[in-house]
Amino acid sequence: MKNGEVKLVQYFMARGKLSRSRFPIGIGDDMAQARIPKGNSVLITTDMLLDGTHFDTKKHSLEQIGYKSMAANLSDCAAMATIPLAAVVSVALPKKFGAANLKKLHKGIMSAAKKYNCPLIGGDMTSWNKPLAISVAMLSTPGETKPVKRSTAKTGDLICITGTLGGSLKGKHLSFSPRLKESFLIAKAGANSMMDLSDGLSTDLSHICRLSRKGAIIEAAKIPVSKKADGLSGALNDGEDFELLFTIPALKFEKLKKQWRLKTKITAIGIITKEKNVKIRMPNGKPVNIKPGGYDHLK
Amino acid sequence: MKNGEVKLVQYFMARGKLSRSRFPIGIGDDMAQARIPKGNSVLITTDMLLDGTHFDTKKHSLEQIGYKSMAANLSDCAAMATIPLAAVVSVALPKKFGAANLKKLHKGIMSAAKKYNCPLIGGDMTSWNKPLAISVAMLSTPGETKPVKRSTAKTGDLICITGTLGGSLKGKHLSFSPRLKESFLIAKAGANSMMDLSDGLSTDLSHICRLSRKGAIIEAAKIPVSKKADGLSGALNDGEDFELLFTIPALKFEKLKKQWRLKTKITAIGIITKEKNVKIRMPNGKPVNIKPGGYDHLK
Repeated sequence: MKNGEVKLVQYFMARGKLSRSRFPIGIGDDMAQARIPKGNSVLITTDMLLDGTHFDTKKHSLEQIGYKSMAANLSDCAAMATIPLAAVVSVALPKKFGAANLKKLHKGIMSAAKKYNCPLIGGDMTSWNKPLAISVAMLSTPGETKPVKRSTAKTGDLICITGTLGGSLKGKHLSFSPRLKESFLIAKAGANSMMDLSDGLSTDLSHICRLSRKGAIIEAAKIPVSKKADGLSGALNDGEDFELLFTIPALKFEKLKKQWRLKTKITAIGIITKEKNVKIRMPNGKPVNIKPGGYDHLK
Repeated sequence: MKNGEVKLVQYFMARGKLSRSRFPIGIGDDMAQARIPKGNSVLITTDMLLDGTHFDTKKHSLEQIGYKSMAANLSDCAAMATIPLAAVVSVALPKKFGAANLKKLHKGIMSAAKKYNCPLIGGDMTSWNKPLAISVAMLSTPGETKPVKRSTAKTGDLICITGTLGGSLKGKHLSFSPRLKESFLIAKAGANSMMDLSDGLSTDLSHICRLSRKGAIIEAAKIPVSKKADGLSGALNDGEDFELLFTIPALKFEKLKKQWRLKTKITAIGIITKEKNVKIRMPNGKPVNIKPGGYDHLK
């Protein structure tokens, strides 16, 4: 870290004053220290976001990109109904990126950090002659319930989602609201399993089924397709919805719906089955197997 | 995550069996959960390593690169004398990187994870038409002492280092041993400040001085220059030494030296001063100001 970088870290420190009781050691040392507010465990997630894949520096502002990099990880906290604690961000900067651009990126990161009470407590800055890459790692702690896993769906659970699906790449993926408030209510209501929808419903539902050793049948007619989506196929496969997919016993879902006061809608779209296939009943009434339509990063 | 990725994650899970009591939720969910073994705080660090900057896929094996990405973060744990707890790794893979290569990278990561008891508990895998980038985030917990910070050097402290400096890029940077054992002994002996040497002594010593609001004078003749280094200048500026730089009262250092049984040598090279300049006494006896010679990622 040379002078230019030291000054920038000082700039970041001034704009992200940390509570010394929550964070005895903050930005500027080899590690940051976080006190664990309740319980004796901590959760961690990480996401790498790349120029040309998850965002486009030619089209999107650096504030939007910074916001998204945090929001994608906050969505993982919501996926388990856990309380965001703190984040660290490592960046690979293109040559000549410069301090002004880094401040814009930081501004976007901080807007999410403040909105969701998840301070930026550390990071790493490096550079190369290649496009921007941003990796966020985020800590959280359990909320009022145990963290809700993917692997614990039960036969007969309703399969439910928040919001609408598809077409996120037309804009929502940059400015979405991580479903934290929603997730706490869903977990308290007794959801058996939950995850966030990042790779598309067709792919993500198959994860819950595989990990829970169950199957599923969903109803095409019940899927709330976003106005931005190119029909059912978009809702199933577009990805980056950052909505919650959860399974919950039917009676508990009815109770949850009655108490629900948030704007985000919740919709039951199917049921968890003992038989392990993942199926969708098409508008013509015919059930067909769902093939995961998400992106394969190894191909 | 599609089929190829699911299979690979299962491969990783099988090769990194996690203790369910330490890690109630491991790889394969939205977040991993770690129990905090002692105290109620956790520390976190992150480092981004880039092809062409921190490693070279044309020259170095993927096992070496995986090992280094973990070791650089373990060195941060050592820098504060904290106990590694767990790591998450996010990777940006070049197109056509493939599962076989990812397994090699994973093998290197796991060799460090096992050697230093710091399990891999989660990660993210993404791809682009660009070189390999690896970001590791690592958790640790306080050891027997409080975490040793950079900002707490005291006037009159001896300035000390482990090992020898310079020439690391000739090979050591890929296979170095993070100074964890050393750091616990140094912290218990009563070091006032510590950090790991990643940007070169000239740069890193200036951080301790700036953050502690002190100065320093070091003796060129006392600096243990590595045989691989191109003389004093290399020892001061090469970077990536991954040795420890610490400050400690003289009497405590004498006691530490008497008890020292580890192979790594520890050497006093100077003293912390009230006057804020950072100086080096050259072999000719003349003190000159040190200018940070490390790399500036914003230039």
